[in-house]
Amino acid sequence: MSNLLRERFSKPVDAFAEKFVASIDADEQLVLADIQGSVAHTKMLARQGILTQKDAVQILDGLARVRKEFEEGEFVLDVAQEDVHMNVESRLGEAGAKIHAARSRNDQVALDMRLWLKDQVRGLLDEIVSFQAVLRRKAIEEAATVLPGVTHLQHAQPIVFGHVLLSFKEAVERDYGRLEDCLKRIDVSPLGACAMAGTSLPTNPVESARELGMAKVFANSIDAVSDRDFAAEFVFACSLLVTHLSQVAENLILWSTPEFGFIQLPDELCTSSSIMPQKKNPDLVELVRGKAGSVYGQLINLLTTLKALPLGYNRDLQETKPPLFEVAQTTRHSLRAIHLAIDGLVVNRERMREEADDYQLLAADLAEYLAAKGVPFREAHGAVARLMKACVEEGVTPKEMGIQKLRSFHPKFQKNVLDILSPEASVAGKTSPGGTAPANVERSA
Amino acid sequence: MSNLLRERFSKPVDAFAEKFVASIDADEQLVLADIQGSVAHTKMLARQGILTQKDAVQILDGLARVRKEFEEGEFVLDVAQEDVHMNVESRLGEAGAKIHAARSRNDQVALDMRLWLKDQVRGLLDEIVSFQAVLRRKAIEEAATVLPGVTHLQHAQPIVFGHVLLSFKEAVERDYGRLEDCLKRIDVSPLGACAMAGTSLPTNPVESARELGMAKVFANSIDAVSDRDFAAEFVFACSLLVTHLSQVAENLILWSTPEFGFIQLPDELCTSSSIMPQKKNPDLVELVRGKAGSVYGQLINLLTTLKALPLGYNRDLQETKPPLFEVAQTTRHSLRAIHLAIDGLVVNRERMREEADDYQLLAADLAEYLAAKGVPFREAHGAVARLMKACVEEGVTPKEMGIQKLRSFHPKFQKNVLDILSPEASVAGKTSPGGTAPANVERSA
Amino acid sequence: MSNLLRERFSKPVDAFAEKFVASIDADEQLVLADIQGSVAHTKMLARQGILTQKDAVQILDGLARVRKEFEEGEFVLDVAQEDVHMNVESRLGEAGAKIHAARSRNDQVALDMRLWLKDQVRGLLDEIVSFQAVLRRKAIEEAATVLPGVTHLQHAQPIVFGHVLLSFKEAVERDYGRLEDCLKRIDVSPLGACAMAGTSLPTNPVESARELGMAKVFANSIDAVSDRDFAAEFVFACSLLVTHLSQVAENLILWSTPEFGFIQLPDELCTSSSIMPQKKNPDLVELVRGKAGSVYGQLINLLTTLKALPLGYNRDLQETKPPLFEVAQTTRHSLRAIHLAIDGLVVNRERMREEADDYQLLAADLAEYLAAKGVPFREAHGAVARLMKACVEEGVTPKEMGIQKLRSFHPKFQKNVLDILSPEASVAGKTSPGGTAPANVERSA
Amino acid sequence: MSNLLRERFSKPVDAFAEKFVASIDADEQLVLADIQGSVAHTKMLARQGILTQKDAVQILDGLARVRKEFEEGEFVLDVAQEDVHMNVESRLGEAGAKIHAARSRNDQVALDMRLWLKDQVRGLLDEIVSFQAVLRRKAIEEAATVLPGVTHLQHAQPIVFGHVLLSFKEAVERDYGRLEDCLKRIDVSPLGACAMAGTSLPTNPVESARELGMAKVFANSIDAVSDRDFAAEFVFACSLLVTHLSQVAENLILWSTPEFGFIQLPDELCTSSSIMPQKKNPDLVELVRGKAGSVYGQLINLLTTLKALPLGYNRDLQETKPPLFEVAQTTRHSLRAIHLAIDGLVVNRERMREEADDYQLLAADLAEYLAAKGVPFREAHGAVARLMKACVEEGVTPKEMGIQKLRSFHPKFQKNVLDILSPEASVAGKTSPGGTAPANVERSA
Repeated sequence: MSNLLRERFSKPVDAFAEKFVASIDADEQLVLADIQGSVAHTKMLARQGILTQKDAVQILDGLARVRKEFEEGEFVLDVAQEDVHMNVESRLGEAGAKIHAARSRNDQVALDMRLWLKDQVRGLLDEIVSFQAVLRRKAIEEAATVLPGVTHLQHAQPIVFGHVLLSFKEAVERDYGRLEDCLKRIDVSPLGACAMAGTSLPTNPVESARELGMAKVFANSIDAVSDRDFAAEFVFACSLLVTHLSQVAENLILWSTPEFGFIQLPDELCTSSSIMPQKKNPDLVELVRGKAGSVYGQLINLLTTLKALPLGYNRDLQETKPPLFEVAQTTRHSLRAIHLAIDGLVVNRERMREEADDYQLLAADLAEYLAAKGVPFREAHGAVARLMKACVEEGVTPKEMGIQKLRSFHPKFQKNVLDILSPEASVAGKTSPGGTAPANVERSA
Repeated sequence: MSNLLRERFSKPVDAFAEKFVASIDADEQLVLADIQGSVAHTKMLARQGILTQKDAVQILDGLARVRKEFEEGEFVLDVAQEDVHMNVESRLGEAGAKIHAARSRNDQVALDMRLWLKDQVRGLLDEIVSFQAVLRRKAIEEAATVLPGVTHLQHAQPIVFGHVLLSFKEAVERDYGRLEDCLKRIDVSPLGACAMAGTSLPTNPVESARELGMAKVFANSIDAVSDRDFAAEFVFACSLLVTHLSQVAENLILWSTPEFGFIQLPDELCTSSSIMPQKKNPDLVELVRGKAGSVYGQLINLLTTLKALPLGYNRDLQETKPPLFEVAQTTRHSLRAIHLAIDGLVVNRERMREEADDYQLLAADLAEYLAAKGVPFREAHGAVARLMKACVEEGVTPKEMGIQKLRSFHPKFQKNVLDILSPEASVAGKTSPGGTAPANVERSA
Repeated sequence: MSNLLRERFSKPVDAFAEKFVASIDADEQLVLADIQGSVAHTKMLARQGILTQKDAVQILDGLARVRKEFEEGEFVLDVAQEDVHMNVESRLGEAGAKIHAARSRNDQVALDMRLWLKDQVRGLLDEIVSFQAVLRRKAIEEAATVLPGVTHLQHAQPIVFGHVLLSFKEAVERDYGRLEDCLKRIDVSPLGACAMAGTSLPTNPVESARELGMAKVFANSIDAVSDRDFAAEFVFACSLLVTHLSQVAENLILWSTPEFGFIQLPDELCTSSSIMPQKKNPDLVELVRGKAGSVYGQLINLLTTLKALPLGYNRDLQETKPPLFEVAQTTRHSLRAIHLAIDGLVVNRERMREEADDYQLLAADLAEYLAAKGVPFREAHGAVARLMKACVEEGVTPKEMGIQKLRSFHPKFQKNVLDILSPEASVAGKTSPGGTAPANVERSA
Repeated sequence: MSNLLRERFSKPVDAFAEKFVASIDADEQLVLADIQGSVAHTKMLARQGILTQKDAVQILDGLARVRKEFEEGEFVLDVAQEDVHMNVESRLGEAGAKIHAARSRNDQVALDMRLWLKDQVRGLLDEIVSFQAVLRRKAIEEAATVLPGVTHLQHAQPIVFGHVLLSFKEAVERDYGRLEDCLKRIDVSPLGACAMAGTSLPTNPVESARELGMAKVFANSIDAVSDRDFAAEFVFACSLLVTHLSQVAENLILWSTPEFGFIQLPDELCTSSSIMPQKKNPDLVELVRGKAGSVYGQLINLLTTLKALPLGYNRDLQETKPPLFEVAQTTRHSLRAIHLAIDGLVVNRERMREEADDYQLLAADLAEYLAAKGVPFREAHGAVARLMKACVEEGVTPKEMGIQKLRSFHPKFQKNVLDILSPEASVAGKTSPGGTAPANVERSA
C-alpha cells in the first residue's frame, strides 16, 4: 500500500492484506482512462487558477510520458501502490503531488470506469450493426427457404428461414436500444464530487466534463461517488444480449444434429473428438450458450454487492470493477462467435423442405381458409382438428383425401383448397405485416 | 384443459397435469387486459371485413358483460379452462367462437402482459415522483443539519442531512429514467403475429395497436410471440430501485440504533418484541432490505428461463408471468414503505451535530486550506496527516493546539485557519457544484 | 399487529405497515408445526416445574382444540395477529398467557420451520425412491434398445436406452444423498435459545428436543435464532434436483420432435394448440424445464437475504419462509411430472435403431479394435479418422469397403473386424464396469 | 487446436475460434492432477495387459519428466493444444500416443477436476479448524465482557462478547460439515467411462480408483462424464461459508464505527484515505463482505450452465472449471482475512459495557423474574412494558424508581429484584444450555 497514505499508522500493512485489498489486475484496463481523466482535471485546475500554468504543463508532460510508457509496455502496475490511481500519480514525480487537489480516489475511480465503459459500449454497438448486416444478407439469400416453424419444438406452420434470421435481427435491435439508453447514464462525469462532500476550492466540474466529452455532470456529490447503477445496467444489457445469442446457439446446435440436418456449421469453427474422429462438434456455439451463465452470475454479483450498502464510498465497490471487464469481453466474444457461425452457415434447403412438407403444418391454413369464408373460428378449428385426426388414423394426407372427403369435415371446403396445400403456398400467403411471406422478408431485410 | 383444444387426443388430460400446466392464479391479474385486447382485435376484424358488423357488436357486448362480471367479482377463473384467454372466450358463448380468427394465444398472452405492465410502470413512475417530493421537502427542512459524512462507515467530512436526502432523490431519478426507457420496449403491440407466422387473412396490426393506444407494432412475427425482454428489463429496473431502497433502509436502521441515535422512525411503523417490551424494532425497513433478494431472485428466474430457448413459443414462457406480478407488487410496496418512513422521520439534530463535531472530520478542509495557498496537494496531505496523528497522541484538537503549533506542521497555516474548524464552517464552504453546502441543498431541492 | 406487543407505543400501527410486515400467507403452512412445538414446550415447562400441572393440562387441551379447529378449516389466520405464533397463542385464552415463558418468537419460528421442513424432506426422499423404481423398470424393458449416444448432440457411439434411464437414476441418487445430509442440519432444535441470550429459568432444551423427536439441540443461543443455513441448503439440494429434471425434460422434448421421433409422451400429459389442432405439445415437461429458474431464483433470494446480516434476529429473516414453501412445492410437483412422463413413455425402438445404424458411430470401436491389437491409440485414432473421411467422401460404409480397402488404412485390420460393425455388436462389447452393455444394464437396474 | 484431432476437416481452425474454445488459462491449475490421473491410468493399463510393461515404464518416465518441467516452470501451456490433456500428452512424445486407450478427454477432465477439488476441500477444512481455534481463544479472553445483545440492531438483552465469538464458531462448524459431505461426492473416480459408453477393452476402473486413493467408482458411464454436481455443491458450500464471513465482517465494520466504538481492527489490516489522512478504513473486511457476491454469482453461473443440458458431454461443461478456481481462492482468502481480523482485534470493554448498562436491556430479566414467581408470561410482559414506558417518560431507571414504585406495576416484585438490575447479573443468570452466561462460554470454548 502506498506509504503516502499511511502516515497515520504505526505499523506497515500486512503482506496478505496488501494483496487482498489491491485491485491491480483489474486496474490495468483503466490506465488510459485514468490518464485521460487526470489530463482533463489538470486543465480545469489550471483554468480555474488552482494550479499555475507552469505546474500544469509539467503535469501534462508527465501524463503524456506515462501514457507512452504504458503503450510501450514499460509501465507495469505495482501492487504496493494499491491501485491504478496511485500507480499513475507515483510515476509523475514531484508534479504529481499537485494533481490531487479537488479530487479524491472516490470520484476518480468512478470517472475511470465510466470512460472505459463508454468505449466498450460504443464498440459493442458497432459489432451489433455489423452482425445485423450479416443477418440481413443471409435472410435475403434464404427468403424463400421453407422449413417447419415450431412452437414447443413441434411442427406448427411452414415458415421461411430468412424470416427466422430476421427474428434474430429484431432481438439484437432491442439490445442495441438498451445499450444506447444505458450509455446516457454512463456518460455523466462524477469528477468534482471529491471524497463525497464536494470541495471548497473553486473548481468547475462542467469544464472538466466538457474537456472529457461527457454529456452530463453529477448533481449530488454523495451519490456521485457511490453510484454504480451504470455498471449493473451495462451488465444487464449484456445479459439479455447473451440470452439472445444463447437462443441462436441452441437453434444452431439442434439444426446441426444428424436428426435435424438443417444446417452445417463451417469446419473452421468446429472441433473433433479425441476418441471419435468422425465427430464434428459445434463447440464454439455450445460455449456461447454456456457462457451466458457467467454474465448472469456477474449481474447477481453486482446487485448483491450493492444491496444494503450504507451511504458513501465503501470498499465493497471495488468489486464492481472485475465484473465489468469480464462481461464486456465475454459479450463481445460471444457476439463475434455467433457472427462467424451465421456468416459461414451452410443451409441444407432440401432437408428443411423435406420436414416442412408435412400436411399437419397446414392445419392453421385450412382453418384460416374456412374463416375467410365466414366460418366462426372455433368451428373451423374443430373441423380441421377432426380432419387431421382422420388423416393420422387413415394414414393419408388431406390432398390424398380429395375434395369430396374434405367436404365431409366442413361443407365450405371447395376445390381451390387443394392449391394451398404446400409449404410454398402457405408461406406465400402470410403477407400480413411482420408475417413470414418471402416478399415480406425481402422487404424488411 | 379446455376440451375445445383436445379434439386430437384419445384420452382426457391427467388431473395432476391439468393443474400443473394451468396459469390460473397468475392470470387473474390479466383479465382486464385480455378483454381490452379482445375489444381492439374485434374492432379491427370488423373494420377489415373479417367479421360482420353484427357479429362484432355481439362480441363487444359480450366482452363488456364479462368485464362487468369480473369487476363485480362474479367471474372466477376455472382451472379446467387452462388460462385467462380460454376463460374469457368461453364466457362469450357462440360469438366467442368467431373472435379467434387471425389471433393465437401466443400473440394474445404477449399483448396482455404488455398492457398490464404498461399500467404498472406508469403507476410506479407516479410513486417515484411522489417519493421525491417528500425527499425534497425533508431536504429543505434539514438543509443545515450537520452530521458526519462517512466513507467505509468511518467519519470522513461534515455533510448536511438534506444533502443525504437529495442523494436518495438522485438515485431514484435514474430508476425513473430506466423505467421510462423500458416503457418504450413494453409499448409495442404483438397482436397480429398469430401463432408465429402471421396470417393469410387481411388483418391490420397497425389499426389494432392504434386502438390500444400502443406506440409501436411488432416487426417480425416469430420474434413477437417469443420476446419477453420487456419482462426481464422491467424486473431489472425494479432490481436497481429496490437496491436503492435497501440502501436507504440500511442507513435508517443504522441511524436508529442507540449507538448512532441520529433518527427515530415513527411509532406507527415499528413493532415491539414478545419478550422485550421496550424494543422499538424497525421491522418495516428491515423487510424492505430483505425483500430486495426476492426481486433479484426473480430476475435470475426470468433470465434462466429465457436462456437457450429454441425458436418460437415454448411453454417455459408461461413462467415469465408470475415474476412480473410478484416484482411489481414488492417494488411498489417497498417504495411505499420507505416513503412512509422518510415522511415520518424524526431527526435528532443535536446527536448528529455531536458526532459531526469531531476535528478529525476537518482534515480534508485543512489540506484544502493549504492547497488553496499553493501547497502541492500531497505535501498538504502529508502535513495534515502528521498533524492529526499528533492530535490523537496528545489528546488535543487542532483548535486547542493554537496557531503556533499548527505552523510547526506547515508554515502556510495562518490565523484564519481557526475559523474553518467547525462542521458548520466546513459544510458552508462546500459550494462547488453538487457539493454539500446548505445553499446548494436549498437550490437543488 | 397484536396489541399485546404494543404497550410501549403511543400510536397504533399504520394499516399499510401492518400488512407489509405480516407473514400470514406463508404462516398458514406452519400452524401444525407451531402447535407441535408448543406442546413439547409446555410439557417441558411442566416437567421442570415452571408451569403447574394444572396449567399445563389446560394449555395442552387448548392446543389440541386449536389443532382440531385448524384441521376442520375453522381457524383462519388473522393479519392483525401478525404471525402464526400470536394467532395460535391468542386462541388459547388465559392459559396462553403462560406459555411464552422461556421462549421467544425467535426460537419458536426457527423451530416451526425446521419441523415443517423435516416432513417435506422425508416426503421428497420417498418420491425419489418411487421415481427410481420407475426408471429401473423402464431400464430393464429397454436394456437392449440401441440409439445413438451423443456428445455435443452429435452422434458418438451406440448406447442402449436402458443405460440412459439408469444415468437419470444415478443423478437423483446424489440428490437423495444431499437431502439426507441436509436433514442432519435441519433436525436440530433451537427451542430454549429464547430471544438470543438463553434464559434464567430452569429450562431443559434436551428434554423438549427429545419430545419433538429431534436429533440434536442447539449449542449457542445467538446462532440458534439467526441460523437459516438449513433453508438455503434445502433450496440448494432442490436446485440440483430440478436441474437434473430439467435435463431429463430437455431430452424428452428433443426426442419427441418429429425430426428425432424417438419417443411419444402419453396423450394425457400433453396439450394441443388453439390454432393448430394437430399439435401435441409437451407442455408438462417444458414447464419442468422452465420452473428450474424459479428454484435458482429462490436460492439467490435466500443467500442475498442472509448476506451481511448483523448479529441476532433481524426481520429480514421473515423473508426466508416463502422461498421454502414455494421451492418444496415446485420441486415435488416437477418430480411428479417427470415421473409420470417416464412412466407413460412410448419408445419408438425402430426409429432409435435407424439413427443408431450409422457407421460413423463405430469409429471408436474400430480404434479400440486396433488398440486391442497393440496399435498405439493415437495411431489407431489417426487411421480411423482417415478411414471415416474416405467413407464420407466416397459415400460408402466401412462394411461396404471390404476388408482389403480397410487394410489400406491400417494393416492390423482383419476379417473379423466386419463382425463388430453393427450397433448391437458395439453395445454388447461395452462390458467394462459402468459401460452400456445390455448385460450391465440388467445387472444394475 | 491440436492437429491430432482434425484429420476429419478440410480447413484449419479459425484463429478466433481456437482461442475462444481453449481452456488454457483455467487448465494450468489442473496440470498436476492430469499427470496424476495419467500415472494411475497407465499403471492400470499395464496391469490389465493393455499396455506392455516396457511402454508403461516409458510413459511413466515421460510423465515424471513433464511433472518436473511443470514444477520448474518450464512447461507453459500452448493454446494450439486446446487444453491441459493434449498439452501433457503432446509432451510425452511417441509413448504418449499409447496412453489414450480406454480413456477419453470426457472422463479425464472430470477426473482432473475431482482430484484438484479434493485437495482444495481438505485445505479449506484445515483452515476452518484453525479459524475456530482463534475464535475459541478469543472467546475465553472475552468470556465476561458484557455488551448489548441486539435483535433488529436494537438493544435486546446483555450478552457477553465471548458468546458472540462462539456463535461464529458454530456457523463455520456447519460449513465444515457441508464440505465434508460434499467431499463424499467429489471423491468418486469417473476414469473408465471413456467418452460416454465405456469400452470394449479389458479395463479395471476399480484398480485405477484405488491407485488414485479415491473412495468410490462411477456406476454409469453416461452420468460419469456429464456429472458436475460436485462442482455446484462445492460452490454452494462456499456460498454459505462466505455468507457467514460477510456477517462477521458486517459486525466488525459496525463495531469499528466511531458511534459504536466497540472494537479496533489492527492497523496492519487497515488503509487510510488519499484526502482524509485521519481515516482508518476497514477495507479488508469490507472486501470480504463485497466478495460474497462473486461466489453467489458463480453458483448461479454453474446452475444456469447445467440447466437443461442434453445427454452426454456438451462443451458448455468447460465453463464449469473457472468458477471452481475462482471460488476456491476467494473463499480461502476471505476466511484468511477474517481470521487475521479476529486474531488482531482489540476489544474496547469499557465502551461495550457503557452501552450494555442500559436498563431497557433488562426488561426480559424483569419479566422472567415475575414468571419465576408464577406470574403468567403475558401478564409479566404487560407489566414490564408499562414499567418501561413509565421509565422512559419519567427519565428514570427501574433501580432509581425503587421497590415501592416497582410494586405499583406488579405486586410480585420484591426487594431482591434490585440485585438483578445490572448487565453482569443478567448474563450470569443465563445458565440455560447454550445461553450467554460466562460460565457457559468458558465451558463450550
